[in-house]
Amino acid sequence: MSTQPSTELETFANPTPERDYTIRIRIPEFTCLCPKTGQPDFATLYLDYIPEARCVELKALKLYIWSFRDRGAFHEAITNEILSDLVRALEPRYMRLRAEFNVRGGIYTDVVAEHRAEGWTPPIPVQLPF
Amino acid sequence: MSTQPSTELETFANPTPERDYTIRIRIPEFTCLCPKTGQPDFATLYLDYIPEARCVELKALKLYIWSFRDRGAFHEAITNEILSDLVRALEPRYMRLRAEFNVRGGIYTDVVAEHRAEGWTPPIPVQLPF
Amino acid sequence: MSTQPSTELETFANPTPERDYTIRIRIPEFTCLCPKTGQPDFATLYLDYIPEARCVELKALKLYIWSFRDRGAFHEAITNEILSDLVRALEPRYMRLRAEFNVRGGIYTDVVAEHRAEGWTPPIPVQLPF
Amino acid sequence: MSTQPSTELETFANPTPERDYTIRIRIPEFTCLCPKTGQPDFATLYLDYIPEARCVELKALKLYIWSFRDRGAFHEAITNEILSDLVRALEPRYMRLRAEFNVRGGIYTDVVAEHRAEGWTPPIPVQLPF
Amino acid sequence: MSTQPSTELETFANPTPERDYTIRIRIPEFTCLCPKTGQPDFATLYLDYIPEARCVELKALKLYIWSFRDRGAFHEAITNEILSDLVRALEPRYMRLRAEFNVRGGIYTDVVAEHRAEGWTPPIPVQLPF
Amino acid sequence: MSTQPSTELETFANPTPERDYTIRIRIPEFTCLCPKTGQPDFATLYLDYIPEARCVELKALKLYIWSFRDRGAFHEAITNEILSDLVRALEPRYMRLRAEFNVRGGIYTDVVAEHRAEGWTPPIPVQLPF
Amino acid sequence: MSTQPSTELETFANPTPERDYTIRIRIPEFTCLCPKTGQPDFATLYLDYIPEARCVELKALKLYIWSFRDRGAFHEAITNEILSDLVRALEPRYMRLRAEFNVRGGIYTDVVAEHRAEGWTPPIPVQLPF
Amino acid sequence: MSTQPSTELETFANPTPERDYTIRIRIPEFTCLCPKTGQPDFATLYLDYIPEARCVELKALKLYIWSFRDRGAFHEAITNEILSDLVRALEPRYMRLRAEFNVRGGIYTDVVAEHRAEGWTPPIPVQLPF
Amino acid sequence: MSTQPSTELETFANPTPERDYTIRIRIPEFTCLCPKTGQPDFATLYLDYIPEARCVELKALKLYIWSFRDRGAFHEAITNEILSDLVRALEPRYMRLRAEFNVRGGIYTDVVAEHRAEGWTPPIPVQLPF
Amino acid sequence: MSTQPSTELETFANPTPERDYTIRIRIPEFTCLCPKTGQPDFATLYLDYIPEARCVELKALKLYIWSFRDRGAFHEAITNEILSDLVRALEPRYMRLRAEFNVRGGIYTDVVAEHRAEGWTPPIPVQLPF
Ligand SMILES: [Ca+2]
Ligand SMILES: [Ca+2]
Ligand SMILES: [Ca+2]
Ligand SMILES: [Ca+2]
Ligand SMILES: [Ca+2]
Ligand SMILES: [Ca+2]
Ligand SMILES: [Ca+2]
Ligand SMILES: [Ca+2]
Ligand SMILES: [Ca+2]
Ligand SMILES: [Ca+2]
Ligand SMILES: [Ca+2]
Ligand SMILES: [Ca+2]
Ligand SMILES: [Ca+2]
Ligand SMILES: [Ca+2]
Ligand SMILES: [Ca+2]
Ligand SMILES: [Ca+2]
Repeated sequence: MSTQPSTELETFANPTPERDYTIRIRIPEFTCLCPKTGQPDFATLYLDYIPEARCVELKALKLYIWSFRDRGAFHEAITNEILSDLVRALEPRYMRLRAEFNVRGGIYTDVVAEHRAEGWTPPIPVQLPF
Repeated sequence: MSTQPSTELETFANPTPERDYTIRIRIPEFTCLCPKTGQPDFATLYLDYIPEARCVELKALKLYIWSFRDRGAFHEAITNEILSDLVRALEPRYMRLRAEFNVRGGIYTDVVAEHRAEGWTPPIPVQLPF
Repeated sequence: MSTQPSTELETFANPTPERDYTIRIRIPEFTCLCPKTGQPDFATLYLDYIPEARCVELKALKLYIWSFRDRGAFHEAITNEILSDLVRALEPRYMRLRAEFNVRGGIYTDVVAEHRAEGWTPPIPVQLPF
Repeated sequence: MSTQPSTELETFANPTPERDYTIRIRIPEFTCLCPKTGQPDFATLYLDYIPEARCVELKALKLYIWSFRDRGAFHEAITNEILSDLVRALEPRYMRLRAEFNVRGGIYTDVVAEHRAEGWTPPIPVQLPF
Repeated sequence: MSTQPSTELETFANPTPERDYTIRIRIPEFTCLCPKTGQPDFATLYLDYIPEARCVELKALKLYIWSFRDRGAFHEAITNEILSDLVRALEPRYMRLRAEFNVRGGIYTDVVAEHRAEGWTPPIPVQLPF
Repeated sequence: MSTQPSTELETFANPTPERDYTIRIRIPEFTCLCPKTGQPDFATLYLDYIPEARCVELKALKLYIWSFRDRGAFHEAITNEILSDLVRALEPRYMRLRAEFNVRGGIYTDVVAEHRAEGWTPPIPVQLPF
Repeated sequence: MSTQPSTELETFANPTPERDYTIRIRIPEFTCLCPKTGQPDFATLYLDYIPEARCVELKALKLYIWSFRDRGAFHEAITNEILSDLVRALEPRYMRLRAEFNVRGGIYTDVVAEHRAEGWTPPIPVQLPF
Repeated sequence: MSTQPSTELETFANPTPERDYTIRIRIPEFTCLCPKTGQPDFATLYLDYIPEARCVELKALKLYIWSFRDRGAFHEAITNEILSDLVRALEPRYMRLRAEFNVRGGIYTDVVAEHRAEGWTPPIPVQLPF
Repeated sequence: MSTQPSTELETFANPTPERDYTIRIRIPEFTCLCPKTGQPDFATLYLDYIPEARCVELKALKLYIWSFRDRGAFHEAITNEILSDLVRALEPRYMRLRAEFNVRGGIYTDVVAEHRAEGWTPPIPVQLPF
Repeated sequence: MSTQPSTELETFANPTPERDYTIRIRIPEFTCLCPKTGQPDFATLYLDYIPEARCVELKALKLYIWSFRDRGAFHEAITNEILSDLVRALEPRYMRLRAEFNVRGGIYTDVVAEHRAEGWTPPIPVQLPF
């Protein structure tokens, strides 16, 4: 496997497509550049999805994340773009991305976006007593 | 950009208006004056919203927050006023503001207010199993 | 303002009655006496409410809380009595009181009671994706 | 009051039967014996209930819990038995018991059981914005 | 009882089949091998289920978990396989398995899968005020 | 035993006077009155001591603590007074008292005082590697 | 007492000058202005001291802290100035001030300064085994 | 090995007597009876020691701890007794025992005792910068 | 001020050189490249120092940290290099740098290095009782 | 580099031998077998050292740790053996190893061992005021 930043999102076949199961991924090492000042920005990404036919390969996801290292990117726009890229590559039943940006000017900002496949309805959740 | 306290709330175009996505902002550096005693009050603000056409610019938000530094303000009134100012400037689909005030007299107080755009209905949330 | 314990619950006009907003109050300094043994009991009170026409004044609330310092009071009864006193004084749309008592005999006890104004229906909550 | 372990569950009259209010009790000092090996087992019990006519007296509850100190008891069976004993004594509107057992063989086990009085329907919960 | 890794999942009769109660199990000592590199992987498993006629014996569960120590296994596939094995052995009313894998390449991954018995409907949860 | 507040500090004979061992006591339920405003003050007391001939009886200590409930007391003075009372009653080899008062006016205050018996030297501490 | 910001530091007589005891004060509500940009800065102050003849009055300390609200002040300079002001007013045996400033530009800064009275030697600390 | 409570403390040969190394043991499942009331008491034991010729066998330690289950025991006396038993069985270079008892009457109590072999001097600790 | 990465470390005159005071800086946004694989590495830096004649300017420190973004650097070497750069620029009385690197291959690594000016001796620390 | 378990401990030249600096390594993924029962044991290793001429290569350290996966090993013996292996390979100025084993039978065990090079004396630590 290449160890260059890459915008390709390699995938593999979902081993259990008969179930609506969830994959949760946390990436604390996202960094890009502020398009206004050119200075580095940092965020933690939280990606949750229910796969359809494809799952994302984790090493490829890492190289994809790396590809933002030298790009300028606004908080709101970049979160939506990453979600859109992943949706295009995986065509998941459901996907949600939360980007938790580091504090700037005393203000903390998170952006959360989600995608639902057309015609897909979420299973009614089972809430076990706690 | 000015570095004076300002009651203007600069905005920018929502880059992804086609999605109902969420922006969460935490501002731990809010301070105003108690209208009864004139002494400083402190709070952390939590602002969550789903934008329509406009997003709030973070530096402008910071200057707006700064504009309360020399104002007298009751807990309940100021929380509702800030929410109303932001709703007027952004006309969001949904907005919620929580103000967590520092303890006074052994009592901790939070105030939480929200706004829903007319005709807007929240998407039914997807609750992934945890 | 008096600085005597007081059973009066001073109120002020709700500044934003047009909104169903929430006021959350935490009081970690509640103490009364055990009616069986006469010994001091301690609790933290959590009071959440949606005001109608009146809000409770915080200093008055403090004096009211103080008025229990020399009273004997069972856990279940006192929690319901405080809720009833506050409901009578404020006539809120909604109110909930949680009393978290300190451990006794290796057992921790909380009591939670709530009041809903007749005819009032809670707004369907907006659950933002997290 | 006796200070012997006791299987009696003394109760007192619910002071506010007109409300569906909640009593939450945490008991971190439960111990019994493993019926297989005879060795001590330890658990924390979480008991939540909505009383009907009777509340459980806390000192009696403590003596009841003590009565398991020399009994052999499987995790699943004992949790259900304690719940059943309490339901029989209190006939509550609702009751839930969670037993959190200490780790054994690298495995942590909780058991949660609940009882609902016939004909009783839980109030639709008020979810205040947070 | 054998102390060899074992793929057998010994069970015992559910002592209280008349109730829909929950058993929660946490196993922080799961380890298998990465099928790509052959190197060890580590995870914590969270298993929650509502038993029908059978419960899983904890020592047998431990030996079963041990049987993965020398097996190559992808995150998504192994989580679904373990769930399927447990469902086959217990035929529970409901079962959910969460596997929280240790970080690799700066990325944290969890996989969550669930099973519902046909014809079984979850009880509407009682949400006590908190 | 009486269940009245009491300024008497009952003691019992140290069972192991041949060792310099430590007794640590935490009392989260201390309350007195502010001598300026008359309003209740709250603190957590941390008492550590090395006994000589006498140890303090815990129920008596509780009644002693209770005796401050209706007394006015400045933070610095009360901490030193309690230490002096305990030193007089126990004549310990070493004693330290920390009083952690609840926040007032946005300011948190602790007072820490200690006593060393004349001629007593603390053993050189053994610091195990961590 | 005045409720104006004040540079006066009112004191009162140390009630127990015969002991080297410690007073610890935490002030989470310090704010001043950045002398470069004019924008608000925020810090938590930690003040620890051993009094000689005088203790600082807490309400006066609060008004003194308030007096920095409209002053420009560099982190290193302001911490040393506050320490010097307090040393001048109290002439303590020992004093230490830590200022924990809020993050700016992704960087967190604390400044810690201390004063020892001439001729004063700290007591050799008693380290109780833990 | 027996699975009965036992006052025997089985040991094994220290595998590395040429080093002053530390063994730290935490036992959260200690229970005995209060000699005054006969009711159960609970504690967590922290045992740290530097072995000489013998180490304590962990299963035997567990059976020894179990032997207190039906014994009445004061906090101060029992901690010193357990330390003395272990010192007699192991003759360690150094040993320290901390017993952290559960809260009773709103008061938390720990007892800490230690033993040093005659002629043994602790190595000067290496404190790495943190 | 430039907003380019820069290896220059701008300084300013220590405002209180007559005191041995401490400046503590935490930088959670350090990133460089692994010299073996070329992939990004991440760390949090903790810098503590006692200034002599010069203090480091925080914005300059930020640009200096930024200058490592595109450099390959081993953990041990880079920590020592940054310390050496800062020592050269500030000639402090004392300086310590801790670099806490993100986990790689299941292993967490920190590197800590320090510098002491020749002829400088650290003040004997005052340890206040806690 | 091989991806087989290996008892070889590859090293590289210390880049800054002129300084006594510290390398801290945490390895949460240690597993071996219990020599009595043959069942898996788990531990977290904490390794701190001051290098002399050589540092340990992290990937090699990982393969070395992996080599214990199929070995039977007592807690006390294995901790000392790993320390000895590392000391032989690195000949460090100072090294300390802490092994924190997972709970077994309700008992938590840590073992801590250290090595000091002959003739090496630890630098007197600089304790900055906190
Ligand atoms: Ca793209
Ligand atoms: Ca964050
Ligand atoms: Ca708060
Ligand atoms: Ca009343
Ligand atoms: Ca509580
Ligand atoms: Ca029964
Ligand atoms: Ca647990
Ligand atoms: Ca995890
Ligand atoms: Ca007295
Ligand atoms: Ca406190
Ligand atoms: Ca001044
Ligand atoms: Ca801070
Ligand atoms: Ca405790
Ligand atoms: Ca770390
Ligand atoms: Ca070896
Ligand atoms: Ca542990």
